[in-house]
Formats: sequence, structure tokens, C-alpha cells
Amino acid sequence: MTGTIHGVGLGPGDPDLMSVRADRLVRATRHIAYFRKRGRVGQARRLVEGMLRADAIEYAMDYPVTTEIPVADPAYMDRLSAFYAECTRHLAGLADAGEEVVVLCEGDPFFYGSFMHLHSRLAGRAPVRVVPGITGMSGAWTASGMPITWGEDVLTVAAATLPEAELTRRIRDTDALVVMKIGRHLPKLRRAVAAAGREAAAWLVEYAAMAEQRVMRLADAGDSAPYFTILLIHGQGRRP
Amino acid sequence: MTGTIHGVGLGPGDPDLMSVRADRLVRATRHIAYFRKRGRVGQARRLVEGMLRADAIEYAMDYPVTTEIPVADPAYMDRLSAFYAECTRHLAGLADAGEEVVVLCEGDPFFYGSFMHLHSRLAGRAPVRVVPGITGMSGAWTASGMPITWGEDVLTVAAATLPEAELTRRIRDTDALVVMKIGRHLPKLRRAVAAAGREAAAWLVEYAAMAEQRVMRLADAGDSAPYFTILLIHGQGRRP
Repeated sequence: MTGTIHGVGLGPGDPDLMSVRADRLVRATRHIAYFRKRGRVGQARRLVEGMLRADAIEYAMDYPVTTEIPVADPAYMDRLSAFYAECTRHLAGLADAGEEVVVLCEGDPFFYGSFMHLHSRLAGRAPVRVVPGITGMSGAWTASGMPITWGEDVLTVAAATLPEAELTRRIRDTDALVVMKIGRHLPKLRRAVAAAGREAAAWLVEYAAMAEQRVMRLADAGDSAPYFTILLIHGQGRRP
Repeated sequence: MTGTIHGVGLGPGDPDLMSVRADRLVRATRHIAYFRKRGRVGQARRLVEGMLRADAIEYAMDYPVTTEIPVADPAYMDRLSAFYAECTRHLAGLADAGEEVVVLCEGDPFFYGSFMHLHSRLAGRAPVRVVPGITGMSGAWTASGMPITWGEDVLTVAAATLPEAELTRRIRDTDALVVMKIGRHLPKLRRAVAAAGREAAAWLVEYAAMAEQRVMRLADAGDSAPYFTILLIHGQGRRP
């Protein structure tokens, strides 16, 4: 009997926003695995604190590199690729031994998630199931207290790592906007939003759905943002 | 003591994909309210079947019009506006009487949701809280078995009700795509996808996360689609 690898979305950051299915799988599993930055507890692991079986066996997958090497450097891709291959071997080995494994995923596993790199490698190697989750961006627009899209609004989701001119063009050409992966790109993002003439409508949400949650106008933000920061411009479409 | 109106996201269509918080609120509430097409049970109400208190009091909000009048007709906006105002009066009255009310919302309340029209009218009138949910589009890309966005992929979410040329332009100018509100616009959407040269990459998901779930290539679809249909083009971005 081969076990199944479950990629389980945990939602934006409050355990109460996990799905009923995710909650049940996390509490029942003997094997859990999760990504984290080396030396940190990791947000995914923190989210399930107090929920695990006493005999749970944890497999922490420490990224070999996060921001130390530029993404464009071939060494970055090489090191990550070898890392994902090693994680895949380990998880597939557990499945071969008949074990069920829950891989904890922040947000939704199929939306800019690290689990996708295991999912593609596990295909044909072990049974995989995915449990969707509430995305970080849903957490962010809920925190902002304003709906993100109305009627026929077009929503664009982009990463702040894009070139400034491309960001500006995208921000100009959409009704509603979500920007992720902000961090040290905040000054560039701010320039792009201003160039698109939309600074007055832009909001930053830090740590959505977490204890440290903060919502502010982009104009009131500093020059850097924590990893869990999302920029929002709310759509203004049709509303009876 | 004024009661609170809770706009509660129920997720894409499987009760198991409700959040733990949504599940708890639905089971505990005495007053629930939900939108539906006149004469139907309604998807939101169907989702909570078997979960309600025996003494639960239901307030069904029947849309006075859905597709009988064109959206562009002022009569459409007038009738919906009066309807939302009446629903707001009723719910605010319950809150004034100290009652907590759960308004059932398909997907995520702040993402193209009808609850938004109550939320904006209740502001300053009664306390409102929103519980985010897993979106229908997350349910759809999970059903497709393929991640929607990788690396720096730009995701565009649009409605099939947009003009054909605008749809074509949007489909050409994005990495990943989600199109909602398809229904009778499917032939137009298909032409737009073809004009953008992306028909081979396009998938339709009907009834994501529900018993009737179907995933098919756009090329294999007919000329109409049920209400719960989402078109997907998956991003092909960076993957170590």
C-alpha cells in the first residue's frame, strides 16, 4: 500500500482560517513536512503549533538559499533544483513505505507555492493530493475592510520583483491590483504606483490574518516591508 | 447590545473546504441569511445543509432579477439597489435587536461577492465582520491538477462579460489567466482565446469542488457552460 503526499493549504496565517479538511489532516498525520528558512521556525510550522500528534515525525525542508544569491544566477536555480529533488526523494520514500505525509503550505499550494516544485517532481512517483487554502491576498483584502473586485473589474496579480517599467504598465492597465513579493522592492514599487497615478488608492497590508497585522496607506509606509506584505488597489467597478 | 453581521465565506463548494471559523459560525448561529435565485435552494444554502441549529431562522434573499434584464439597463441597477437596501434594513434590524447574523457567501465575500453590496450599506449602521474563504478559482485550479502561477507569473482575473476585443487583449497580455462569469459568453470567450493564440493551453473547470466537478480542455467544451464554470490558462514561469 503506497501512502499519499498531501499538499495542504493552511491559509493566510490564522489557524482558524485553515479549512476543515486541512485541520483534520494536520491533526491526524504522523508525518509532516514543511519548508522554512534555515534557522527559523517557519510560518507554516508555527501555524500548526499545538495541533500535531504527540508522535508526529517532522521533516523540515530548509531552503539552501533564499536571497543570498540573485535569482538570475544559474547557481540559484541549480541549488534549489537539487534541494527539491532531495525533498522529493525523501517524501516519495515515505509514500513507498506506506506512510501518509502532510506537507504544510502557506496560503494556497498552487498559487506561487513552493510545494509546486515537489508536486511536479512527484508526478508518476507517488500519489499526491492537494487541499486548496485561503490565499494570503484574500487575507489582505479582508484585513483592509474593502472588497477587492466589483462587477466586471479586472484583477491583476503581480510580483514586485518585475522591472519598474513593467510594473508601471501593469498598474496603469488594471482595475484592481495585488502585488506580492515586495520586501526590498518597496521603493521601486512605490515609484511604479506613483508613475501610474494611483498612489492615493494604494494600501499595504503587513502580516494579514496574523497577530502583527497592520493596514496602512502606501503613502504612510517606510522604505522596506516585511516578507508578508501585500499591496492592494481596490477595484471600483459596478455596484448597484 | 448590538449584534454583529458576519459575512462568511464558504469556499468553492465542498463543506470540507469551509474554514474552521466559518464552520463554527454556521453551526452556532441562530440567524442565517443567503442570496439565491428565486425558486432555487441556492448554492450557499445547499453547502450548509445538515449544519444548522434546529431552531435556526433563515432569511432567503431572492434576487429580483438575474439575467432577465441586461445589466446595462438602468432598471437592472434600480431593482438590485432597492433589493440590497431592503436586505440591509432587515439585517440591521436584527443587529439592533442584539442578534448575531451569519450571511452565507459562496467563495470569498470580498471577491466579486453579492455580500459586498450589503457590506457597503451596513457601514456605520451595524457592526460587520468578514471571514475570508477559499475562492472558486482556487477550487478550479486545484481541480485541474496544475499550479496556476510560478515565479514571477502575472495573473489576470477577468469576466467573460467583457467585450471580445478587450478579452483578447487581456488574454494575450498575461502569463496566467482566470475567467469567470462565463455562461452564455462561452462562444465569445472561445474566439478571444483563439485570437490570442492560446486555445491549446486553455482549460474549463465546471462545478469545482462539487460532486459534479468536470475538468476539460476548452477545445473539448460545447457552446454553453453552467454558471459555476471557470476558464484557466496556467502560468509557465520560472521553476527550478
